[in-house]
Amino acid sequence: MRLKDIGEFGLIKRFRDKIKTDNSVVKGSGDDCAVLKLDKDNYQLFTCDMIIEGVDFKKTVDPALVGRKALAISISDISACAGIPRHAVVSLGLPLAMPVSRVDRLAKGLFSLAKKYRINIVGGDISSADKLIIDVSMLGVVEKKNLCLRSGAKTGDIIMVTGSLGGSIKGKHLKFEPRLKEARYLVNNFKINSMIDISDGLLQDLSHILEQSSAGAVMYEKLIPLSREARGVDDALSSGEEFELLLTASRDQANRIIKSSKYRFTPIGEIMPKAFGLRTINYKNEYSRIKSRGFKHF
Amino acid sequence: MRLKDIGEFGLIKRFRDKIKTDNSVVKGSGDDCAVLKLDKDNYQLFTCDMIIEGVDFKKTVDPALVGRKALAISISDISACAGIPRHAVVSLGLPLAMPVSRVDRLAKGLFSLAKKYRINIVGGDISSADKLIIDVSMLGVVEKKNLCLRSGAKTGDIIMVTGSLGGSIKGKHLKFEPRLKEARYLVNNFKINSMIDISDGLLQDLSHILEQSSAGAVMYEKLIPLSREARGVDDALSSGEEFELLLTASRDQANRIIKSSKYRFTPIGEIMPKAFGLRTINYKNEYSRIKSRGFKHF
Repeated sequence: MRLKDIGEFGLIKRFRDKIKTDNSVVKGSGDDCAVLKLDKDNYQLFTCDMIIEGVDFKKTVDPALVGRKALAISISDISACAGIPRHAVVSLGLPLAMPVSRVDRLAKGLFSLAKKYRINIVGGDISSADKLIIDVSMLGVVEKKNLCLRSGAKTGDIIMVTGSLGGSIKGKHLKFEPRLKEARYLVNNFKINSMIDISDGLLQDLSHILEQSSAGAVMYEKLIPLSREARGVDDALSSGEEFELLLTASRDQANRIIKSSKYRFTPIGEIMPKAFGLRTINYKNEYSRIKSRGFKHF
Repeated sequence: MRLKDIGEFGLIKRFRDKIKTDNSVVKGSGDDCAVLKLDKDNYQLFTCDMIIEGVDFKKTVDPALVGRKALAISISDISACAGIPRHAVVSLGLPLAMPVSRVDRLAKGLFSLAKKYRINIVGGDISSADKLIIDVSMLGVVEKKNLCLRSGAKTGDIIMVTGSLGGSIKGKHLKFEPRLKEARYLVNNFKINSMIDISDGLLQDLSHILEQSSAGAVMYEKLIPLSREARGVDDALSSGEEFELLLTASRDQANRIIKSSKYRFTPIGEIMPKAFGLRTINYKNEYSRIKSRGFKHF
């Protein structure tokens, strides 16, 4: 049996089943970040994301964008748990023939974004590699009362999304702004029941929320905010690396959030009982039952 | 200018000069771990290490040993700061054609060692890659009074090493036991002034201590404990990935440490003023002035 036979999520499940953790761990594998006990009022968040040349970016891309992306992905994970990013370490695999000027560009992209978000780069590891590899591990902090997980969605919750979706591959995946301000605004002013960032695709990431929350959902395709780059609603449903926030809150909270108009939050559906499954309602008002679609590494 | 022209340490310095950190960071880049403020009595340690097929291990190696090594390197870094490893996240780059049975072996090696050292694996990231890549990021905790850095060596300190050195490439680099017990024994019973783990080679890692401590040293080649696999003293001086601890303590403390005989600590030299440089005394009692030698990635 090869990896492609069991798939990325099959493999992750295979690992997860082997893991035991002690009571210092509030939430281990299975959310955007691991959640660890920190002090009376706060949890620590811990996440890692690896990007590889030829898989997550093309060899010809400006290394400044690659360095930026590597850090931004982890900031997005911390944001999805409603935390504040604080510290990061960076492992680099560098091809021997890489010009130093390109490494400097990479560092510039990474350090500029770190400075913007006040993240301390506190260490790293450098190795030679055939292709450029960057792995960022990040620590963040979140007030216990503000922690958002995938697992809190409740029947009747309104599903909302930040920004617009689709066509990330045309450039957004390298230039997105992680939704940190939006996430902090949400938890500081409203009660959010569940949240995730859209890295695998809207349908797939919604499926993650539903699975962790033991819930179903209905989603209205005509409500999904399409980006200018989207090739239609199917693209918006499956486009990975959008790094928008997908969240749920009670109808009452959702009304207040949507009216607040400080940032763009668009309601796109509703959480249903688990037995309902995940269904979309298309432009012709037809139901269709969904199996998750989106980006998988294999 | 290519990477091989400035070298690994030139590149690291290039990055380090760009880094600014806030007062949550006790020690950033430049030691075995980053040291972060945690609470009144303790610091948090944060480190990452990436290993890549063809660079750090051969393709034919049992993946259980590869998974084990990936975790053991980070445990060794935490040990070198005298801390206790607690939590880790693991980024994996996996070739699509890799049999699931080999991934299971990798997981087994990694999880077995995690269990032995009571480390919580709390998350990860999986990507497809041409070659197997594992990057482990680890958190540890150390009592403020017990923290060991590279920077504390003082003139007159005795330089000591755990275990024996040389020929790690013949197998030890895949099977070493990180010197966690030894490090904790040391700080719980004695005052250690500086410590590092030998990953780049004895001379090179001693150079790291000397540089961070603004010190010089004399080392007696005939005192260096040679492993059975060592091809002579030159090998012991330069062999990387030995993962023994190299430490310094006052003469008085060193005498007590060496007499204690609970673990093997061998005195191999003495810290000198910076102007002395780093010199070894060979078997014929001849001085030689050393420029650092050891493993570099480029």
